[in-house]
Amino acid sequence: MDPVKILDVKESILNDNDETAEQFRKELKAKGVFLLNLMGSPGAGKTSTLLRIIDALKGEFRIGVMEADVDSSVDAEKAAAAGVRVIQLHTGGSCHMDAEMTRRGAEEMGIDGLDLLVVENVGNLVCPAEFDIGANRRAEILSVPEGDDKPLKYPLMFETADVVFLNKIDTIRYFDFNMDHFAANVKSRRSGTEIIPYSAKTGEGCDRVAEWIRNAVLEDRKSI
Amino acid sequence: MDPVKILDVKESILNDNDETAEQFRKELKAKGVFLLNLMGSPGAGKTSTLLRIIDALKGEFRIGVMEADVDSSVDAEKAAAAGVRVIQLHTGGSCHMDAEMTRRGAEEMGIDGLDLLVVENVGNLVCPAEFDIGANRRAEILSVPEGDDKPLKYPLMFETADVVFLNKIDTIRYFDFNMDHFAANVKSRRSGTEIIPYSAKTGEGCDRVAEWIRNAVLEDRKSI
Repeated sequence: MDPVKILDVKESILNDNDETAEQFRKELKAKGVFLLNLMGSPGAGKTSTLLRIIDALKGEFRIGVMEADVDSSVDAEKAAAAGVRVIQLHTGGSCHMDAEMTRRGAEEMGIDGLDLLVVENVGNLVCPAEFDIGANRRAEILSVPEGDDKPLKYPLMFETADVVFLNKIDTIRYFDFNMDHFAANVKSRRSGTEIIPYSAKTGEGCDRVAEWIRNAVLEDRKSI
Repeated sequence: MDPVKILDVKESILNDNDETAEQFRKELKAKGVFLLNLMGSPGAGKTSTLLRIIDALKGEFRIGVMEADVDSSVDAEKAAAAGVRVIQLHTGGSCHMDAEMTRRGAEEMGIDGLDLLVVENVGNLVCPAEFDIGANRRAEILSVPEGDDKPLKYPLMFETADVVFLNKIDTIRYFDFNMDHFAANVKSRRSGTEIIPYSAKTGEGCDRVAEWIRNAVLEDRKSI
């Protein structure tokens, strides 16, 4: 296996992020690439979820992955081992990706021929929610151990997420996590957001996560 | 119980944070107040740890708490119920506290007569590490479900933390968390950082967390 390519991307404060995001989204559309922005806390299980998604969908879609981290390339190495196109982006201390950083990463990696491009954003529930990176959908991974009150504390993340993947459902009996409270808290931020409970560890529910993504990709293709 | 006071604090980009932090630290010293900056991911258990700390130390120290959140005041209400002086700070979308925001919160709450002031920072492993808020010590709470690789991904947090409180140790058998790997990863960022495993839920090890803080406060008093 070739070593994973690592690119340093820096945030530019001069650039109009919303405009760049719109432009980048059009470029992706023209190439037929669907971009998923995968967000969540440190340790929510973004990478292990991504490996489940790759496993479930790599037969149907050509998948590319951009791993964004402040440092290290452990996630990218795992994704590369799963046999997809990968680049590791180092954000230079920045707590999120923006549209220009994402576009630069995509250029460097090469996205021609891909169906599905997944950005694993920096582990953080605040900053990544503030930036449109040009994605077609935003998915928020929350894990059971984080608690059912997180939508109350991180409003923008839950106002902007198109779906909530609820990971580590296999551990729910060891934590004070009330599913009804969680559903109500999610709903208080954005009504109609689907919550998909699953466990990247045991595999339970991972088919539903993959199905949600598959449907989003296919739906987007129809809307030309 | 009176309703918790809520203060909106906004980050000022014009202010020299390091200078403000040094100045604020001197003011705290003059008043005999020890400031602890408590950081960690969303859901790491910062508030429940704080309640354990209050319980263990409120007989010896007069304690004040500043709860920093993007939104909501659920944490401050819990701390207020524990019988200490509390203020809730809303950061206006900002992912961290800085020195001026902390000073404003302290002024508004009133810190005269306090021995120990704890800031529960915004749940985040990136931004809070970048800002000196004027604290005497920085504590990083990591929880077992987040994984043993976090020091690799969030370098600055582990380079600057004076201690690592490892929460949810009661759940270690349900997660792939290797204590030797974790210790090596912590050490790779800063050698000599003490790791204190505990569970805010069961109470196991909480006396050692409280003891670390007690020793830090007493040590600081000697160094006048």
